[in-house]
Amino acid sequence: MSSIDSLIKSLCRLPGVGPKSAQRLTYHLLERAREDATQLAESLHDAVLKVGHCKKCRTLTETELCNICTNPRRDSSLLCVVETPADILAIEQAHSYKGHYFVLMGHLSPLDGIGPREIGIDLLEKRLTQNLFTEVILATNSTIEGEATAHYIANLITKYKIRCTRIAHGVPVGGELEYVDAGTLSHAFSGRRQL
Amino acid sequence: MSSIDSLIKSLCRLPGVGPKSAQRLTYHLLERAREDATQLAESLHDAVLKVGHCKKCRTLTETELCNICTNPRRDSSLLCVVETPADILAIEQAHSYKGHYFVLMGHLSPLDGIGPREIGIDLLEKRLTQNLFTEVILATNSTIEGEATAHYIANLITKYKIRCTRIAHGVPVGGELEYVDAGTLSHAFSGRRQL
Repeated sequence: MSSIDSLIKSLCRLPGVGPKSAQRLTYHLLERAREDATQLAESLHDAVLKVGHCKKCRTLTETELCNICTNPRRDSSLLCVVETPADILAIEQAHSYKGHYFVLMGHLSPLDGIGPREIGIDLLEKRLTQNLFTEVILATNSTIEGEATAHYIANLITKYKIRCTRIAHGVPVGGELEYVDAGTLSHAFSGRRQL
Repeated sequence: MSSIDSLIKSLCRLPGVGPKSAQRLTYHLLERAREDATQLAESLHDAVLKVGHCKKCRTLTETELCNICTNPRRDSSLLCVVETPADILAIEQAHSYKGHYFVLMGHLSPLDGIGPREIGIDLLEKRLTQNLFTEVILATNSTIEGEATAHYIANLITKYKIRCTRIAHGVPVGGELEYVDAGTLSHAFSGRRQL
């Protein structure tokens, strides 16, 4: 295979990049942006080599412990459980949570062979016994798998006598009722709060 | 900058990839597809190192002359002028042209400092004097710049007494008139042929 074809094939493996886009990207890089291509190759190589998982919260990091786990100003009584490192980024951008995190790196999916062990439940239990959390916030996705994972963890936490909460589901801020789906609306009604 | 941030930044430089997609790609590669990332880094490195331009037609190739220029079964009396190597691929996939190519690697664009020299007009003239072409087909894009470039080359070719043609513009095959834009329709009318 020529190196052009092999580059097209490698780009095709990226999510959301089809054969036509891969071809367009390849020609773009080789015709007009060879420096970008070299830079990208180096960044990829570097990241694969250096980035590992935080020993405490499992997020992606270059150091043994991530920035959030080592930050003394974070509230060490709160733990938020999320599915992926990208979720941490989204929550951090909202600036409303100041506690610690635990990343499952996925969700329970027995059919795909992903059980409690694969999403690091043993490490989570270890943290629950070692740290003195007063509350665990379950912020897994609002999908069937995310809900199932949240329920599984909630069940597990009962034995630690720690408060366990789930993030609220309802109408998005700025959303018009007319365009909100039925599932979200029924959540918004069942989760209504007194003003 | 951390190697995660630097990978996000490098991916951002790809056309059509914004900060959010770059972040999603980065997390995808580091969480689930490290082999793909390594493979992509190698392909990029390889391609940048090995791929150059064909000495005869200027397309991207790993060898001194490309596959089409060295193929003795191609019709050596025909030359098709295109803007980019991707155009050659598109024409080859249509299986209706069997001659040779010349790639401008762009189009005339005086405001961006792209003149005849930058699009390889000197090399094109050299080929017109050396080879015995009976026809030059101008297949530059149907944009203002592509049309201007085609006219420039057509003017240049008059002195060589070679037949110079332009690919037909009109309604796309399978296209419904209702959805065809006015410019294309007026081209389709002015270029009508007797049945």
